Amino acid sequence: MKKVIASVDTGGTKILVSILDAKGKILSTTKKASKVNGGTKPNILKRIINAISEAMEDLDSDEFKLSAIVIGVPGTINPDTGLIYLAPNLGLKNFLISDPIKQKFKVPVIVENDANLGTIGIHKYETEDKFRNMIGIFVGTGIGAGLVFDNKIYRGSNFTAGEIGHMIVEPAGFKCGCGQTGCFETMASRTAIARDIFSEIRLGKKTIITKLIGKNKIIKSGTLARAVEEKDKLTQKILIKASIDIGTMIANLANLLNLDAFVLAGGVIEACGDFMIPYIRQTAKSHALPGNFKGVKILKSKLGDNAAIFGGYALAKEKGFFK
Amino acid sequence: MKKVIASVDTGGTKILVSILDAKGKILSTTKKASKVNGGTKPNILKRIINAISEAMEDLDSDEFKLSAIVIGVPGTINPDTGLIYLAPNLGLKNFLISDPIKQKFKVPVIVENDANLGTIGIHKYETEDKFRNMIGIFVGTGIGAGLVFDNKIYRGSNFTAGEIGHMIVEPAGFKCGCGQTGCFETMASRTAIARDIFSEIRLGKKTIITKLIGKNKIIKSGTLARAVEEKDKLTQKILIKASIDIGTMIANLANLLNLDAFVLAGGVIEACGDFMIPYIRQTAKSHALPGNFKGVKILKSKLGDNAAIFGGYALAKEKGFFK
Repeated sequence: MKKVIASVDTGGTKILVSILDAKGKILSTTKKASKVNGGTKPNILKRIINAISEAMEDLDSDEFKLSAIVIGVPGTINPDTGLIYLAPNLGLKNFLISDPIKQKFKVPVIVENDANLGTIGIHKYETEDKFRNMIGIFVGTGIGAGLVFDNKIYRGSNFTAGEIGHMIVEPAGFKCGCGQTGCFETMASRTAIARDIFSEIRLGKKTIITKLIGKNKIIKSGTLARAVEEKDKLTQKILIKASIDIGTMIANLANLLNLDAFVLAGGVIEACGDFMIPYIRQTAKSHALPGNFKGVKILKSKLGDNAAIFGGYALAKEKGFFK
Repeated sequence: MKKVIASVDTGGTKILVSILDAKGKILSTTKKASKVNGGTKPNILKRIINAISEAMEDLDSDEFKLSAIVIGVPGTINPDTGLIYLAPNLGLKNFLISDPIKQKFKVPVIVENDANLGTIGIHKYETEDKFRNMIGIFVGTGIGAGLVFDNKIYRGSNFTAGEIGHMIVEPAGFKCGCGQTGCFETMASRTAIARDIFSEIRLGKKTIITKLIGKNKIIKSGTLARAVEEKDKLTQKILIKASIDIGTMIANLANLLNLDAFVLAGGVIEACGDFMIPYIRQTAKSHALPGNFKGVKILKSKLGDNAAIFGGYALAKEKGFFK
């Protein structure tokens, strides 16, 4: 029997489960909404368990054997115990998620912060340990990050490192969900980009976005990608502004941490990264100390939505679960 | 014979050499100006060598034997080779400082960035490995820092990590010596504090500083300490402003790096830290994510001007030079 692992990405809107073999090939995938009927603990747990079961059912049970489960969660997690301290977007607090899943499937369960998992995916799987010191920056509804120092994920003293989205960059800026004002994610997340576009639309600016979203007043990353494709001036302008903010942040992190690489991922980057990265790179280069920017790579991750899934694979491989 | 080491702090204005024994006791100290007759390589080298020789001459040569020399330099250094890539304040570039000193004294010579050395002094000697993840922030003419992750000094990919003074925090701010605008050290260094005080004096504000500096138009850290002691309103106001900037930076670093401790040192902190730290702490606490600030210590180093000297001692001890 071939050993496989289940890699679970538990996001604020969807639960994504992929089954991968020892070579990192995705054999099956299941998606479920994460918060149907409210995001209670038993509810989310049930949906994760069902998603894993369904993904496994797609495979021939005589040929494949589940050997471990890795779960990425958007929140603070103790990876040693599997305890979720706090995952605001899932409404979870002090929840030992690993135990019931371990009981159900009788295999080891690893829980990890999703940005850390995505960064492990980029570092181990996508860039194959090439960057000794790097950061994975995930630009989506919010902005998160994972840090790698000396080829190891860095979690901080209470497992909360990487909260780049809540670094205050514009004290006179917009109110953030965290209660502060001017956090980085109020400047450059998809939420911020959408807010700026709507604000210009209200001022009478013409944009293809109005047509693309129709009555549905939500600007998704795909909408932005489409507008960029159509060379929509307003979308380009707002994305350039966000790119300059991201580039300035990268310059600051280069000065502080002298990293080898900044790898960008998340919905906004997957959709518009090719347009944004030249502006990001130019801003970072012009604002960083030359010695700190020497040889620095600023890249778009090729893993897209699957960064955390491949992070789960890389972690399982590192821990010997395919042996 | 008792083994001793020479710990050298090569600053932009002075070269400080202390001889320490295995217990970390300072047996003798010599100070020399660093840039007399211009800061050429042979000149600085000669002054360092003379300062070490003089400091050793103060000791009984039958009783003490020099076993290593540690040199702190304000610049980018490869500690493996002893090569100074760039030390702008000393006017040094691509200078293998360790070799001629090794030839002269016939003992191993270690070269290290001064902020890293100061941080090693705080981490190993002052706080005795108590903080697994910490930063030493040195507020003086400029602002530098040293990072400790997982109880080890973190130097970055090209040995340039810790350039906190050049993180851009106010893009619409003051021009910095590095060529950028709004760097952290244009907000909160002694240079920035002095600039803000002079600017208010020009606007007609009354302050004891005017009397303290007399015709000599230089505000030293000692001048600030004296003015705070006298409860000078203007000095207090400007120091509170700098404290808020430092506190905001600390909140941002807490969110990014989830450290155990922020230890402050350098001339400004040594002189005015007792007044400033309550404001720094309050600002940091109110701006950091609660989970990232849990249990965080913000402290004033007790090592003062000697942080790098004790860093040299701690490094020599770690490397077994007293054995």
